[in-house]
Amino acid sequence: MTTGDDPPFRHIAIAGVGLIGGSIALGVRERWPSVRVTGVDRAAVIAHALGGGAIDRGAASLAEVEDADLVVLAAPVRQNARLLSEMSQALLARAVVTDVGGTKRDILKAARLLPPGTTFIGGHPIGGAERGGFGFARPDLFRGRPWILTPPAEVDDAALLRVRRFVEGLSARPTLMDAAAHDTVMAFVSHLPQLAASALMDTVGGAVAAEGLAIAGRGLVDSTRLASSPASVWRDICLTNADAISGALDQLIDRLNDLRADLSRGEALDAVFSGAARWRGELMKGRD
Amino acid sequence: MTTGDDPPFRHIAIAGVGLIGGSIALGVRERWPSVRVTGVDRAAVIAHALGGGAIDRGAASLAEVEDADLVVLAAPVRQNARLLSEMSQALLARAVVTDVGGTKRDILKAARLLPPGTTFIGGHPIGGAERGGFGFARPDLFRGRPWILTPPAEVDDAALLRVRRFVEGLSARPTLMDAAAHDTVMAFVSHLPQLAASALMDTVGGAVAAEGLAIAGRGLVDSTRLASSPASVWRDICLTNADAISGALDQLIDRLNDLRADLSRGEALDAVFSGAARWRGELMKGRD
Repeated sequence: MTTGDDPPFRHIAIAGVGLIGGSIALGVRERWPSVRVTGVDRAAVIAHALGGGAIDRGAASLAEVEDADLVVLAAPVRQNARLLSEMSQALLARAVVTDVGGTKRDILKAARLLPPGTTFIGGHPIGGAERGGFGFARPDLFRGRPWILTPPAEVDDAALLRVRRFVEGLSARPTLMDAAAHDTVMAFVSHLPQLAASALMDTVGGAVAAEGLAIAGRGLVDSTRLASSPASVWRDICLTNADAISGALDQLIDRLNDLRADLSRGEALDAVFSGAARWRGELMKGRD
Repeated sequence: MTTGDDPPFRHIAIAGVGLIGGSIALGVRERWPSVRVTGVDRAAVIAHALGGGAIDRGAASLAEVEDADLVVLAAPVRQNARLLSEMSQALLARAVVTDVGGTKRDILKAARLLPPGTTFIGGHPIGGAERGGFGFARPDLFRGRPWILTPPAEVDDAALLRVRRFVEGLSARPTLMDAAAHDTVMAFVSHLPQLAASALMDTVGGAVAAEGLAIAGRGLVDSTRLASSPASVWRDICLTNADAISGALDQLIDRLNDLRADLSRGEALDAVFSGAARWRGELMKGRD
Protein backbone atom coordinates (compact mmCIF):
# COMPACT_ATOMS: atom_id res chain seq x y z
CA MET A 1 0.00 0.00 0.00
CA THR A 2 1.22 3.47 -0.89
CA THR A 3 1.22 6.32 1.62
CA GLY A 4 2.01 10.03 1.67
CA ASP A 5 3.80 11.10 -1.46
CA ASP A 6 4.41 7.65 -2.92
CA PRO A 7 2.88 7.35 -6.37
CA PRO A 8 -0.36 5.33 -6.33
CA PHE A 9 0.87 3.47 -9.44
CA ARG A 10 4.44 2.59 -10.56
CA HIS A 11 3.96 1.82 -14.24
CA ILE A 12 1.20 3.43 -16.23
CA ALA A 13 0.15 2.40 -19.72
CA ILE A 14 -1.82 4.99 -21.70
CA ALA A 15 -3.67 3.81 -24.81
CA GLY A 16 -4.18 6.85 -27.05
CA VAL A 17 -1.60 9.60 -26.60
CA GLY A 18 -3.64 12.55 -27.85
CA LEU A 19 -4.70 15.71 -26.00
CA ILE A 20 -6.03 13.85 -22.95
CA GLY A 21 -3.69 10.83 -22.87
CA GLY A 22 -0.70 13.06 -23.60
CA SER A 23 -1.68 15.52 -20.87
CA ILE A 24 -2.01 12.65 -18.38
CA ALA A 25 1.49 11.45 -19.34
CA LEU A 26 2.96 14.95 -18.94
CA GLY A 27 1.12 15.44 -15.64
CA VAL A 28 2.48 12.13 -14.28
CA ARG A 29 6.01 13.17 -15.30
CA GLU A 30 5.66 16.41 -13.38
CA ARG A 31 4.06 14.91 -10.26
CA TRP A 32 5.85 11.55 -9.96
CA PRO A 33 9.07 11.59 -12.04
CA SER A 34 9.94 8.00 -11.00
CA VAL A 35 6.79 6.46 -12.51
CA ARG A 36 7.26 4.63 -15.83
CA VAL A 37 4.88 5.58 -18.65
CA THR A 38 4.21 3.43 -21.69
CA GLY A 39 2.28 5.01 -24.55
CA VAL A 40 0.21 2.94 -26.98
CA ASP A 41 -0.52 4.61 -30.30
CA ARG A 42 0.47 4.85 -33.97
CA ALA A 43 4.24 5.05 -34.57
CA ALA A 44 4.18 8.74 -35.54
CA VAL A 45 2.35 9.72 -32.33
CA ILE A 46 4.70 7.56 -30.22
CA ALA A 47 7.72 9.27 -31.81
CA HIS A 48 6.21 12.68 -31.02
CA ALA A 49 5.44 11.70 -27.39
CA LEU A 50 8.90 10.13 -26.87
CA GLY A 51 10.50 13.25 -28.32
CA GLY A 52 8.43 15.43 -25.97
CA GLY A 53 9.59 13.35 -22.99
CA ALA A 54 6.01 12.38 -22.13
CA ILE A 55 6.56 8.59 -22.23
CA ASP A 56 9.43 6.14 -21.57
CA ARG A 57 8.51 3.66 -24.23
CA GLY A 58 5.93 3.12 -26.93
CA ALA A 59 3.90 0.14 -28.07
CA ALA A 60 1.70 -0.45 -31.11
CA SER A 61 -0.87 -2.44 -29.15
CA LEU A 62 -1.99 -2.96 -25.54
CA ALA A 63 -1.36 -6.68 -26.14
CA GLU A 64 2.38 -5.89 -25.94
CA VAL A 65 2.06 -4.41 -22.44
CA GLU A 66 2.38 -6.91 -19.55
CA ASP A 67 3.52 -5.24 -16.36
CA ALA A 68 1.61 -1.98 -15.92
CA ASP A 69 -0.34 -1.46 -12.68
CA LEU A 70 -2.60 1.22 -14.21
CA VAL A 71 -4.03 1.18 -17.74
CA VAL A 72 -5.69 4.37 -18.99
CA LEU A 73 -7.87 3.98 -22.09
CA ALA A 74 -7.76 7.36 -23.82
CA ALA A 75 -9.02 6.58 -27.34
CA PRO A 76 -12.48 7.52 -28.67
CA VAL A 77 -15.32 5.90 -26.67
CA ARG A 78 -16.07 2.84 -28.78
CA GLN A 79 -12.41 2.13 -29.43
CA ASN A 80 -11.86 2.04 -25.65
CA ALA A 81 -14.44 -0.78 -25.40
CA ARG A 82 -12.52 -2.73 -28.07
CA LEU A 83 -9.21 -2.10 -26.26
CA LEU A 84 -10.56 -3.93 -23.19
CA SER A 85 -10.44 -7.19 -25.14
CA GLU A 86 -6.86 -6.60 -26.32
CA MET A 87 -5.37 -6.77 -22.84
CA SER A 88 -3.61 -10.01 -21.80
CA GLN A 89 -4.77 -12.05 -18.81
CA ALA A 90 -1.48 -11.20 -17.11
CA LEU A 91 -2.08 -7.46 -17.49
CA LEU A 92 -5.73 -7.70 -16.40
CA ALA A 93 -4.72 -9.64 -13.27
CA ARG A 94 -2.19 -6.99 -12.27
CA ALA A 95 -3.56 -3.62 -13.38
CA VAL A 96 -6.36 -1.30 -12.40
CA VAL A 97 -8.04 -0.21 -15.65
CA THR A 98 -9.70 3.17 -16.17
CA ASP A 99 -10.76 5.28 -19.16
CA VAL A 100 -11.37 8.95 -20.00
CA GLY A 101 -14.39 8.64 -22.31
CA GLY A 102 -17.25 11.15 -22.46
CA THR A 103 -19.94 8.50 -21.90
CA LYS A 104 -19.83 5.88 -19.17
CA ARG A 105 -22.67 3.31 -19.32
CA ASP A 106 -21.33 1.63 -22.44
CA ILE A 107 -17.77 1.09 -21.25
CA LEU A 108 -18.94 -0.19 -17.84
CA LYS A 109 -21.18 -2.68 -19.64
CA ALA A 110 -18.21 -3.83 -21.74
CA ALA A 111 -16.04 -4.05 -18.60
CA ARG A 112 -18.53 -6.44 -16.98
CA LEU A 113 -17.50 -9.03 -19.60
CA LEU A 114 -13.88 -9.01 -18.36
CA PRO A 115 -12.61 -12.03 -16.33
CA PRO A 116 -13.44 -12.12 -12.59
CA GLY A 117 -10.86 -10.29 -10.48
CA THR A 118 -10.40 -7.53 -13.06
CA THR A 119 -10.73 -3.99 -11.70
CA PHE A 120 -12.28 -1.38 -14.00
CA ILE A 121 -13.19 2.11 -12.77
CA GLY A 122 -14.74 4.49 -15.30
CA GLY A 123 -13.31 8.00 -15.52
CA HIS A 124 -14.10 11.28 -17.30
CA PRO A 125 -11.87 14.33 -16.90
CA ILE A 126 -13.88 17.48 -17.70
CA GLY A 127 -12.08 20.15 -19.61
CA GLY A 128 -10.31 19.67 -22.86
CA ALA A 129 -9.21 22.40 -25.19
CA GLU A 130 -10.30 23.87 -28.49
CA ARG A 131 -7.94 21.58 -30.42
CA GLY A 132 -6.98 17.93 -30.02
CA GLY A 133 -3.82 15.86 -30.52
CA PHE A 134 -0.59 15.38 -28.54
CA GLY A 135 0.69 18.72 -29.87
CA PHE A 136 -1.79 20.51 -27.60
CA ALA A 137 -1.22 18.30 -24.52
CA ARG A 138 -0.03 20.03 -21.34
CA PRO A 139 0.62 18.82 -17.79
CA ASP A 140 -1.83 21.30 -16.21
CA LEU A 141 -4.82 20.50 -18.46
CA PHE A 142 -6.78 19.06 -15.53
CA ARG A 143 -5.81 21.56 -12.85
CA GLY A 144 -8.83 22.46 -10.73
CA ARG A 145 -11.22 20.68 -13.10
CA PRO A 146 -13.69 17.97 -12.13
CA TRP A 147 -12.67 14.39 -12.98
CA ILE A 148 -15.70 12.16 -12.67
CA LEU A 149 -15.19 8.57 -11.51
CA THR A 150 -17.89 5.97 -12.15
CA PRO A 151 -16.92 2.78 -10.30
CA PRO A 152 -19.00 -0.39 -10.69
CA ALA A 153 -21.26 -1.35 -7.77
CA GLU A 154 -18.88 -4.03 -6.47
CA VAL A 155 -15.77 -1.84 -6.67
CA ASP A 156 -12.57 -2.67 -4.79
CA ASP A 157 -12.24 0.22 -2.33
CA ALA A 158 -8.44 0.14 -2.23
CA ALA A 159 -8.30 0.38 -6.04
CA LEU A 160 -10.78 3.27 -6.05
CA LEU A 161 -8.67 5.09 -3.45
CA ARG A 162 -5.58 4.67 -5.62
CA VAL A 163 -7.37 6.05 -8.69
CA ARG A 164 -8.63 8.99 -6.61
CA ARG A 165 -5.07 9.71 -5.46
CA PHE A 166 -3.89 9.46 -9.06
CA VAL A 167 -6.49 12.00 -10.23
CA GLU A 168 -5.67 14.32 -7.31
CA GLY A 169 -2.00 14.05 -8.24
CA LEU A 170 -2.92 15.61 -11.61
CA SER A 171 -4.54 18.47 -9.62
CA ALA A 172 -8.06 17.48 -10.72
CA ARG A 173 -11.07 17.23 -8.40
CA PRO A 174 -12.35 13.61 -8.31
CA THR A 175 -16.15 13.33 -8.15
CA LEU A 176 -17.95 10.00 -7.73
CA MET A 177 -21.05 9.47 -9.86
CA ASP A 178 -23.26 6.67 -11.02
CA ALA A 179 -22.63 5.95 -14.73
CA ALA A 180 -26.26 6.53 -15.74
CA ALA A 181 -26.43 9.83 -13.85
CA HIS A 182 -23.16 10.87 -15.50
CA ASP A 183 -24.52 10.16 -18.97
CA THR A 184 -27.74 12.09 -18.32
CA VAL A 185 -25.99 15.16 -16.91
CA MET A 186 -23.38 15.12 -19.71
CA ALA A 187 -26.13 14.88 -22.34
CA PHE A 188 -27.18 18.35 -21.13
CA VAL A 189 -23.97 20.10 -20.07
CA SER A 190 -21.67 18.74 -22.79
CA HIS A 191 -23.33 16.85 -25.63
CA LEU A 192 -26.28 19.22 -26.16
CA PRO A 193 -24.09 22.38 -26.33
CA GLN A 194 -21.89 20.64 -28.91
CA LEU A 195 -24.80 19.59 -31.12
CA ALA A 196 -26.45 23.01 -30.74
CA ALA A 197 -23.24 24.84 -31.70
CA SER A 198 -22.67 22.66 -34.76
CA ALA A 199 -26.31 22.88 -35.86
CA LEU A 200 -26.29 26.67 -35.36
CA MET A 201 -23.10 27.20 -37.36
CA ASP A 202 -24.25 24.92 -40.18
CA THR A 203 -27.65 26.65 -40.31
CA VAL A 204 -26.27 30.20 -40.26
CA GLY A 205 -23.46 29.52 -42.76
CA GLY A 206 -25.79 27.69 -45.11
CA ALA A 207 -28.29 30.59 -45.01
CA VAL A 208 -26.07 33.67 -45.28
CA ALA A 209 -22.76 32.32 -46.71
CA ALA A 210 -19.43 34.14 -46.47
CA GLU A 211 -20.92 37.58 -47.21
CA GLY A 212 -23.31 37.35 -44.27
CA LEU A 213 -20.72 35.86 -41.91
CA ALA A 214 -18.47 38.86 -42.62
CA ILE A 215 -20.94 41.18 -40.87
CA ALA A 216 -21.58 38.87 -37.90
CA GLY A 217 -20.76 40.18 -34.44
CA ARG A 218 -19.13 38.57 -31.43
CA GLY A 219 -22.27 36.72 -30.38
CA LEU A 220 -22.08 34.27 -33.27
CA VAL A 221 -18.33 33.83 -32.77
CA ASP A 222 -18.77 32.91 -29.09
CA SER A 223 -21.82 30.70 -29.65
CA THR A 224 -20.06 28.59 -32.28
CA ARG A 225 -16.64 28.11 -30.69
CA LEU A 226 -17.36 24.35 -30.43
CA ALA A 227 -18.33 24.12 -34.09
CA SER A 228 -14.89 23.05 -35.31
CA SER A 229 -15.04 19.84 -33.23
CA PRO A 230 -14.42 16.72 -35.34
CA ALA A 231 -17.39 14.46 -36.12
CA SER A 232 -15.25 11.37 -35.39
CA VAL A 233 -15.19 11.94 -31.61
CA TRP A 234 -18.84 12.92 -31.45
CA ARG A 235 -20.18 10.02 -33.50
CA ASP A 236 -19.12 7.63 -30.70
CA ILE A 237 -20.54 9.83 -27.97
CA CYS A 238 -23.90 10.18 -29.75
CA LEU A 239 -24.06 6.45 -30.43
CA THR A 240 -23.31 5.48 -26.82
CA ASN A 241 -25.61 8.08 -25.24
CA ALA A 242 -28.36 8.32 -27.86
CA ASP A 243 -31.28 7.98 -25.44
CA ALA A 244 -30.13 10.71 -23.06
CA ILE A 245 -29.06 13.05 -25.90
CA SER A 246 -32.35 12.50 -27.66
CA GLY A 247 -34.20 13.59 -24.51
CA ALA A 248 -31.99 16.66 -24.14
CA LEU A 249 -32.51 17.62 -27.81
CA ASP A 250 -36.27 17.26 -27.32
CA GLN A 251 -36.20 19.77 -24.48
CA LEU A 252 -34.13 22.27 -26.47
CA ILE A 253 -36.36 21.89 -29.54
CA ASP A 254 -39.42 22.44 -27.31
CA ARG A 255 -37.93 25.70 -25.97
CA LEU A 256 -37.12 26.88 -29.51
CA ASN A 257 -40.64 26.02 -30.69
CA ASP A 258 -42.08 27.96 -27.73
CA LEU A 259 -40.02 31.01 -28.68
CA ARG A 260 -40.99 30.67 -32.34
CA ALA A 261 -44.72 30.50 -31.54
CA ASP A 262 -44.53 33.60 -29.37
CA LEU A 263 -42.20 36.05 -31.16
CA SER A 264 -44.88 38.74 -31.43
CA ARG A 265 -46.08 38.55 -27.83
CA GLY A 266 -42.86 37.94 -25.94
CA GLU A 267 -44.18 35.89 -23.02
CA ALA A 268 -42.12 32.76 -23.80
CA LEU A 269 -39.20 35.07 -24.48
CA ASP A 270 -39.48 36.64 -21.02
CA ALA A 271 -39.66 33.21 -19.38
CA VAL A 272 -36.74 31.72 -21.32
CA PHE A 273 -34.52 34.83 -20.99
CA SER A 274 -35.09 35.19 -17.26
CA GLY A 275 -34.38 31.49 -16.69
CA ALA A 276 -31.32 31.69 -18.91
CA ALA A 277 -29.88 34.76 -17.15
CA ARG A 278 -30.37 33.11 -13.76
CA TRP A 279 -28.72 29.81 -14.79
CA ARG A 280 -25.91 31.63 -16.54
CA GLY A 281 -25.15 33.39 -13.24
CA GLU A 282 -25.17 30.01 -11.50
CA LEU A 283 -22.88 28.49 -14.17
CA MET A 284 -20.33 31.27 -13.76
CA LYS A 285 -20.07 31.00 -9.95
CA GLY A 286 -16.46 30.38 -9.06
CA ARG A 287 -15.27 30.66 -12.70
CA ASP A 288 -13.29 33.48 -14.36
CA MET B 1 -20.42 71.40 -47.41
CA THR B 2 -17.73 69.90 -45.20
CA THR B 3 -14.37 68.82 -46.56
CA GLY B 4 -11.25 67.10 -45.31
CA ASP B 5 -11.16 66.90 -41.55
CA ASP B 6 -14.17 69.11 -40.91
CA PRO B 7 -16.77 67.25 -38.88
CA PRO B 8 -19.73 66.12 -41.01
CA PHE B 9 -22.08 67.41 -38.28
CA ARG B 10 -21.67 70.30 -35.81
CA HIS B 11 -24.28 69.48 -33.19
CA ILE B 12 -25.31 65.93 -32.50
CA ALA B 13 -28.26 64.88 -30.38
CA ILE B 14 -28.21 61.31 -29.08
CA ALA B 15 -31.44 59.87 -27.69
CA GLY B 16 -30.51 57.04 -25.33
CA VAL B 17 -27.06 57.37 -23.74
CA GLY B 18 -26.41 53.68 -22.99
CA LEU B 19 -23.64 51.43 -24.26
CA ILE B 20 -24.13 52.37 -27.93
CA GLY B 21 -25.28 55.99 -27.58
CA GLY B 22 -22.63 56.65 -24.93
CA SER B 23 -19.89 55.09 -27.07
CA ILE B 24 -20.96 57.27 -30.01
CA ALA B 25 -20.74 60.35 -27.78
CA LEU B 26 -17.27 59.39 -26.51
CA GLY B 27 -16.10 58.56 -30.04
CA VAL B 28 -17.28 61.97 -31.32
CA ARG B 29 -15.43 63.69 -28.47
CA GLU B 30 -12.24 61.91 -29.42
CA ARG B 31 -12.54 62.44 -33.19
CA TRP B 32 -14.07 65.93 -33.38
CA PRO B 33 -13.64 67.75 -30.05
CA SER B 34 -15.38 70.91 -31.35
CA VAL B 35 -18.68 69.14 -32.05
CA ARG B 36 -21.45 69.77 -29.53
CA VAL B 37 -23.22 66.70 -28.14
CA THR B 38 -26.62 66.74 -26.48
CA GLY B 39 -27.74 63.61 -24.66
CA VAL B 40 -31.40 62.75 -24.18
CA ASP B 41 -32.14 60.30 -21.38
CA ARG B 42 -33.30 59.97 -17.77
CA ALA B 43 -31.74 62.48 -15.34
CA ALA B 44 -29.49 59.88 -13.65
CA VAL B 45 -28.01 58.75 -16.98
CA ILE B 46 -27.52 62.37 -18.11
CA ALA B 47 -25.67 63.15 -14.87
CA HIS B 48 -23.44 60.13 -15.42
CA ALA B 49 -22.72 61.07 -19.07
CA LEU B 50 -22.08 64.76 -18.17
CA GLY B 51 -19.74 63.61 -15.40
CA GLY B 52 -17.91 61.35 -17.82
CA GLY B 53 -17.45 64.27 -20.25
CA ALA B 54 -19.36 62.43 -22.99
CA ILE B 55 -21.98 65.15 -23.58
CA ASP B 56 -22.20 68.97 -23.30
CA ARG B 57 -25.77 69.15 -22.17
CA GLY B 58 -28.66 66.89 -21.34
CA ALA B 59 -32.36 66.93 -22.14
CA ALA B 60 -35.26 64.88 -20.85
CA SER B 61 -36.96 64.73 -24.27
CA LEU B 62 -36.06 65.14 -27.94
CA ALA B 63 -38.87 67.75 -28.05
CA GLU B 64 -36.49 70.08 -26.15
CA VAL B 65 -33.80 69.83 -28.85
CA GLU B 66 -34.10 72.34 -31.71
CA ASP B 67 -30.79 72.99 -33.38
CA ALA B 68 -29.00 69.64 -33.88
CA ASP B 69 -27.89 68.72 -37.42
CA LEU B 70 -27.69 64.99 -36.62
CA VAL B 71 -30.08 63.06 -34.42
CA VAL B 72 -29.07 59.52 -33.40
CA LEU B 73 -31.86 57.36 -32.02
CA ALA B 74 -30.16 54.88 -29.67
CA ALA B 75 -33.03 53.55 -27.57
CA PRO B 76 -34.55 50.05 -27.95
CA VAL B 77 -36.04 49.47 -31.41
CA ARG B 78 -39.71 50.29 -30.81
CA GLN B 79 -38.89 53.26 -28.61
CA ASN B 80 -36.86 54.69 -31.51
CA ALA B 81 -40.00 54.58 -33.67
CA ARG B 82 -41.90 56.55 -31.01
CA LEU B 83 -39.04 59.06 -30.71
CA LEU B 84 -39.51 59.98 -34.38
CA SER B 85 -42.83 61.59 -33.50
CA GLU B 86 -41.36 63.59 -30.60
CA MET B 87 -39.11 65.69 -32.81
CA SER B 88 -40.21 69.24 -33.60
CA GLN B 89 -40.80 70.45 -37.18
CA ALA B 90 -37.83 72.77 -36.72
CA LEU B 91 -35.52 69.92 -35.78
CA LEU B 92 -36.80 67.65 -38.56
CA ALA B 93 -36.25 70.38 -41.13
CA ARG B 94 -32.64 70.88 -40.04
CA ALA B 95 -31.30 67.49 -38.98
CA VAL B 96 -30.36 64.23 -40.61
CA VAL B 97 -31.90 61.48 -38.49
CA THR B 98 -30.39 58.01 -38.03
CA ASP B 99 -30.76 55.14 -35.55
CA VAL B 100 -28.73 52.21 -34.24
CA GLY B 101 -31.46 49.57 -33.90
CA GLY B 102 -30.95 45.87 -34.57
CA THR B 103 -33.87 45.65 -37.02
CA LYS B 104 -34.43 48.05 -39.91
CA ARG B 105 -37.70 47.50 -41.82
CA ASP B 106 -39.87 48.75 -38.97
CA ILE B 107 -38.07 52.02 -38.33
CA LEU B 108 -37.87 52.81 -42.05
CA LYS B 109 -41.61 52.24 -42.30
CA ALA B 110 -42.17 54.61 -39.36
CA ALA B 111 -39.82 57.18 -40.93
CA ARG B 112 -41.92 57.24 -44.13
CA LEU B 113 -44.67 58.92 -42.07
CA LEU B 114 -42.42 61.92 -41.30
CA PRO B 115 -43.10 65.25 -43.09
CA PRO B 116 -41.71 65.65 -46.64
CA GLY B 117 -38.15 66.97 -46.65
CA THR B 118 -37.14 64.92 -43.61
CA THR B 119 -33.99 62.84 -44.03
CA PHE B 120 -33.89 59.49 -42.25
CA ILE B 121 -31.08 56.96 -42.84
CA GLY B 122 -31.25 53.68 -40.92
CA GLY B 123 -28.10 52.50 -39.18
CA HIS B 124 -26.90 49.45 -37.26
CA PRO B 125 -23.43 49.29 -35.72
CA ILE B 126 -22.40 45.66 -35.26
CA GLY B 127 -20.53 44.82 -32.12
CA GLY B 128 -21.67 45.62 -28.66
CA ALA B 129 -20.29 44.16 -25.50
CA GLU B 130 -21.32 41.61 -22.91
CA ARG B 131 -22.91 44.26 -20.72
CA GLY B 132 -25.00 47.33 -21.48
CA GLY B 133 -25.35 50.84 -20.03
CA PHE B 134 -23.28 54.03 -20.19
CA GLY B 135 -20.87 52.56 -17.62
CA PHE B 136 -19.54 50.19 -20.30
CA ALA B 137 -19.41 52.78 -23.13
CA ARG B 138 -16.02 53.40 -24.75
CA PRO B 139 -14.88 55.55 -27.68
CA ASP B 140 -13.39 52.60 -29.59
CA LEU B 141 -16.42 50.30 -29.39
CA PHE B 142 -16.95 50.49 -33.16
CA ARG B 143 -13.32 50.34 -34.30
CA GLY B 144 -12.96 48.06 -37.32
CA ARG B 145 -16.55 46.80 -36.97
CA PRO B 146 -19.20 46.91 -39.68
CA TRP B 147 -21.82 49.67 -39.38
CA ILE B 148 -24.70 48.88 -41.69
CA LEU B 149 -26.56 51.80 -43.29
CA THR B 150 -30.02 51.23 -44.74
CA PRO B 151 -31.05 54.40 -46.59
CA PRO B 152 -34.54 54.75 -48.06
CA ALA B 153 -34.85 54.40 -51.87
CA GLU B 154 -35.14 58.18 -52.43
CA VAL B 155 -32.19 59.07 -50.19
CA ASP B 156 -30.44 62.43 -50.35
CA ASP B 157 -26.92 61.53 -51.53
CA ALA B 158 -25.23 64.40 -49.73
CA ALA B 159 -26.85 63.38 -46.43
CA LEU B 160 -25.83 59.76 -46.96
CA LEU B 161 -22.25 60.86 -47.62
CA ARG B 162 -22.23 62.85 -44.37
CA VAL B 163 -23.51 59.88 -42.38
CA ARG B 164 -20.88 57.64 -43.98
CA ARG B 165 -18.17 60.13 -42.99
CA PHE B 166 -19.59 60.24 -39.49
CA VAL B 167 -19.44 56.45 -39.17
CA GLU B 168 -15.93 56.36 -40.61
CA GLY B 169 -14.93 59.00 -38.08
CA LEU B 170 -15.83 56.51 -35.35
CA SER B 171 -13.46 54.02 -37.10
CA ALA B 172 -16.32 51.74 -38.17
CA ARG B 173 -16.73 50.27 -41.67
CA PRO B 174 -19.94 51.59 -43.28
CA THR B 175 -21.79 48.98 -45.39
CA LEU B 176 -24.88 49.82 -47.45
CA MET B 177 -27.72 47.31 -47.36
CA ASP B 178 -31.38 47.09 -48.17
CA ALA B 179 -33.45 47.06 -44.94
CA ALA B 180 -35.15 43.75 -45.77
CA ALA B 181 -31.83 42.07 -46.61
CA HIS B 182 -30.40 43.42 -43.36
CA ASP B 183 -33.25 41.97 -41.32
CA THR B 184 -32.94 38.55 -42.97
CA VAL B 185 -29.18 38.31 -42.50
CA MET B 186 -29.40 39.56 -38.90
CA ALA B 187 -32.12 36.99 -38.13
CA PHE B 188 -29.41 34.37 -38.79
CA VAL B 189 -26.13 35.93 -37.65
CA SER B 190 -27.42 37.80 -34.58
CA HIS B 191 -30.99 37.02 -33.53
CA LEU B 192 -30.82 33.22 -33.94
CA PRO B 193 -27.56 32.85 -31.92
CA GLN B 194 -29.13 34.91 -29.12
CA LEU B 195 -32.31 32.84 -28.98
CA ALA B 196 -30.32 29.59 -29.25
CA ALA B 197 -27.98 30.60 -26.42
CA SER B 198 -30.86 31.61 -24.13
CA ALA B 199 -32.88 28.48 -24.95
CA LEU B 200 -29.81 26.28 -24.40
CA MET B 201 -28.94 27.83 -21.03
CA ASP B 202 -32.55 27.67 -19.82
CA THR B 203 -32.86 24.03 -20.95
CA VAL B 204 -29.59 22.88 -19.41
CA GLY B 205 -30.03 24.76 -16.13
CA GLY B 206 -33.61 23.56 -15.77
CA ALA B 207 -32.54 19.95 -16.35
CA VAL B 208 -29.37 19.63 -14.26
CA ALA B 209 -29.60 22.56 -11.78
CA ALA B 210 -26.62 23.98 -9.87
CA GLU B 211 -25.12 20.57 -9.11
CA GLY B 212 -24.90 19.64 -12.80
CA LEU B 213 -23.68 23.10 -13.86
CA ALA B 214 -20.79 22.74 -11.40
CA ILE B 215 -19.31 19.91 -13.49
CA ALA B 216 -19.86 21.59 -16.87
CA GLY B 217 -16.80 22.28 -19.01
CA ARG B 218 -15.78 25.25 -21.13
CA GLY B 219 -18.06 24.32 -24.02
CA LEU B 220 -21.22 25.25 -22.15
CA VAL B 221 -19.61 28.43 -20.82
CA ASP B 222 -18.68 29.61 -24.34
CA SER B 223 -21.97 28.57 -25.94
CA THR B 224 -24.05 30.50 -23.42
CA ARG B 225 -22.07 33.75 -23.18
CA LEU B 226 -25.07 35.60 -24.70
CA ALA B 227 -27.48 34.10 -22.18
CA SER B 228 -27.33 37.01 -19.75
CA SER B 229 -28.77 39.42 -22.36
CA PRO B 230 -31.83 41.28 -21.08
CA ALA B 231 -35.24 40.26 -22.45
CA SER B 232 -36.24 43.95 -22.79
CA VAL B 233 -33.94 44.60 -25.76
CA TRP B 234 -34.77 41.31 -27.46
CA ARG B 235 -38.54 41.60 -27.13
CA ASP B 236 -38.45 44.57 -29.52
CA ILE B 237 -36.12 42.84 -31.94
CA CYS B 238 -38.25 39.68 -32.05
CA LEU B 239 -41.42 41.70 -32.48
CA THR B 240 -40.05 43.76 -35.38
CA ASN B 241 -38.36 40.84 -37.16
CA ALA B 242 -40.72 37.99 -36.27
CA ASP B 243 -41.10 36.65 -39.83
CA ALA B 244 -37.38 36.41 -40.55
CA ILE B 245 -36.53 35.04 -37.07
CA SER B 246 -39.31 32.48 -37.36
CA GLY B 247 -37.78 31.23 -40.63
CA ALA B 248 -34.31 31.06 -39.08
CA LEU B 249 -35.64 29.16 -36.04
CA ASP B 250 -37.36 26.71 -38.40
CA GLN B 251 -34.06 25.93 -40.08
CA LEU B 252 -32.24 25.41 -36.78
CA ILE B 253 -35.04 23.21 -35.42
CA ASP B 254 -34.92 21.17 -38.64
CA ARG B 255 -31.18 20.59 -38.19
CA LEU B 256 -31.66 19.57 -34.56
CA ASN B 257 -34.46 17.19 -35.52
CA ASP B 258 -32.22 15.66 -38.20
CA LEU B 259 -29.50 15.07 -35.62
CA ARG B 260 -31.98 13.64 -33.14
CA ALA B 261 -33.40 11.18 -35.67
CA ASP B 262 -29.95 9.94 -36.61
CA LEU B 263 -27.95 9.71 -33.35
CA SER B 264 -27.29 5.99 -33.76
CA ARG B 265 -26.21 6.11 -37.40
CA GLY B 266 -24.28 9.36 -37.53
CA GLU B 267 -24.97 10.39 -41.14
CA ALA B 268 -26.74 13.64 -40.27
CA LEU B 269 -24.04 14.23 -37.68
CA ASP B 270 -21.30 13.92 -40.31
CA ALA B 271 -23.13 16.31 -42.63
CA VAL B 272 -23.87 18.92 -39.96
CA PHE B 273 -20.39 18.73 -38.36
CA SER B 274 -18.54 19.03 -41.65
CA GLY B 275 -20.70 21.98 -42.73
CA ALA B 276 -20.25 23.57 -39.31
CA ALA B 277 -16.45 23.20 -39.30
CA ARG B 278 -16.23 24.71 -42.78
CA TRP B 279 -18.46 27.71 -41.95
CA ARG B 280 -16.69 28.25 -38.63
CA GLY B 281 -13.42 28.55 -40.56
CA GLU B 282 -15.08 31.07 -42.89
CA LEU B 283 -16.50 33.04 -39.92
CA MET B 284 -13.07 33.32 -38.30
CA LYS B 285 -11.28 34.62 -41.41
CA GLY B 286 -9.68 37.93 -40.52
CA ARG B 287 -10.71 37.73 -36.85
CA ASP B 288 -8.54 37.07 -33.78
